[in-house]
Amino acid sequence: MELRITSRENEKVKQLCKLRESASFRQAQNCFLAEGVRLCRDIAAVWPPLEVYHTDKVLEQHPELQDLPGRHVMISQSVADKISDTKNPQGIFCVFERALKSLDQAVSADRWLVLEHVQNPANIGALLRSAAAFGFEGAIFCADCADPYSPKAVRASMSAVARLKLLRADTVAETAAWLKTEEVPLVAAALRHSVPLDEADGLRGGKIALLIGNEGNGLSDEAVEAADLAVRIPMAQGVESLNAAVAGGVLLWHFRGV
Amino acid sequence: MELRITSRENEKVKQLCKLRESASFRQAQNCFLAEGVRLCRDIAAVWPPLEVYHTDKVLEQHPELQDLPGRHVMISQSVADKISDTKNPQGIFCVFERALKSLDQAVSADRWLVLEHVQNPANIGALLRSAAAFGFEGAIFCADCADPYSPKAVRASMSAVARLKLLRADTVAETAAWLKTEEVPLVAAALRHSVPLDEADGLRGGKIALLIGNEGNGLSDEAVEAADLAVRIPMAQGVESLNAAVAGGVLLWHFRGV
Repeated sequence: MELRITSRENEKVKQLCKLRESASFRQAQNCFLAEGVRLCRDIAAVWPPLEVYHTDKVLEQHPELQDLPGRHVMISQSVADKISDTKNPQGIFCVFERALKSLDQAVSADRWLVLEHVQNPANIGALLRSAAAFGFEGAIFCADCADPYSPKAVRASMSAVARLKLLRADTVAETAAWLKTEEVPLVAAALRHSVPLDEADGLRGGKIALLIGNEGNGLSDEAVEAADLAVRIPMAQGVESLNAAVAGGVLLWHFRGV
Repeated sequence: MELRITSRENEKVKQLCKLRESASFRQAQNCFLAEGVRLCRDIAAVWPPLEVYHTDKVLEQHPELQDLPGRHVMISQSVADKISDTKNPQGIFCVFERALKSLDQAVSADRWLVLEHVQNPANIGALLRSAAAFGFEGAIFCADCADPYSPKAVRASMSAVARLKLLRADTVAETAAWLKTEEVPLVAAALRHSVPLDEADGLRGGKIALLIGNEGNGLSDEAVEAADLAVRIPMAQGVESLNAAVAGGVLLWHFRGV
């Protein structure tokens, strides 16, 4: 029997909205919501959706979406409008399992992106996207980063949120201690007390954990102290900083593993 | 006599709002609006504002703003709220002269960023910011790019909009012809029919014009054909693209002049 939801007041619709809005609800349910043809398809290529919600219209335009695994539910356009995080919803939503682990559940990898206090979901997503593009295997979220499973972060990551191993730690110090046992050098991005990027060329292409801090304030002093080395991107005189996602992209490119 | 505006219906207030909203009005008036303490101060360090609008409150917090050149006008908080492009206006606005020239008015420079059909003002701003940071001297806007003098672009540029020479051209082909007379090689960023970035290392640090296209569709075929060389950023398997501002930042960094 085909499942179909047409009421915006349906209990399941309310849950999907909560999944969109609330980081603590995503954590409690251990899943997240992805929206849009491209994004749902790309994440489903990495791991299967638990649930798939689609309008009649999107199936007509993209019949291949019928082949997505998971429980399929047909929804009305009005329900899609309610669930959506965008102005022009395409009418397809997938619920995926979250895979954020703690350090004691971590598997080894040679190349990590480590974030401290990164607050903007679009920056989190862009950084994950760049990390996946440049051969990093995972990301570690320290302190109070924005949730990588928020709709904005998931969308900006372009499926990297599913491609990368994701870990959660309370502090950078704790992460640094774990990385030491893994023999992965921790390199902090810091404007002061740091060497120009070119002086860290010896670390290119090998094991590395690249540590990036808050958009406005950079890394905490404790985080920089916990790192094995601090680097900065050389800039022209009179220019003080770069866009956070761009700075992260340049650093990830410099230490790329591709 | 101190000038003071307290009515939101004042004719000057309407003009400032139009300056914020309309690219054609900015062009007709040959000026643009910048907002915020940091941004106004940074642009004023490059060239003097024509007019300065501020609330009592922002002057109390930042008395040094009184020393900005140009005609000063005190405004009420309610007027500041009306003029502002942000949710929490700081209460300071400067009107600056635009300096967008056509190719036949151009002065020579060794390093240019060339944009075709770049549509997102925040991307335009971030690209200008990266260009200034990495030692590029100017930017050339071809075809229908978003206006670099919109509030979003100006803010994202972090004063680079004033630091760089800005030129306007109808087509990339016309720009390519001009660059040829200047003996500046034109390098296109293109995913297909291109060489990996490392193969263009010979061009690092020297004369270069770096050509970047639309966020979703990349460069037009004509633009790629007009270029002397096409390069791509190598990426891990399964990853198709980068955030537009990040891709531009990596390319500008690779060909940096700092």
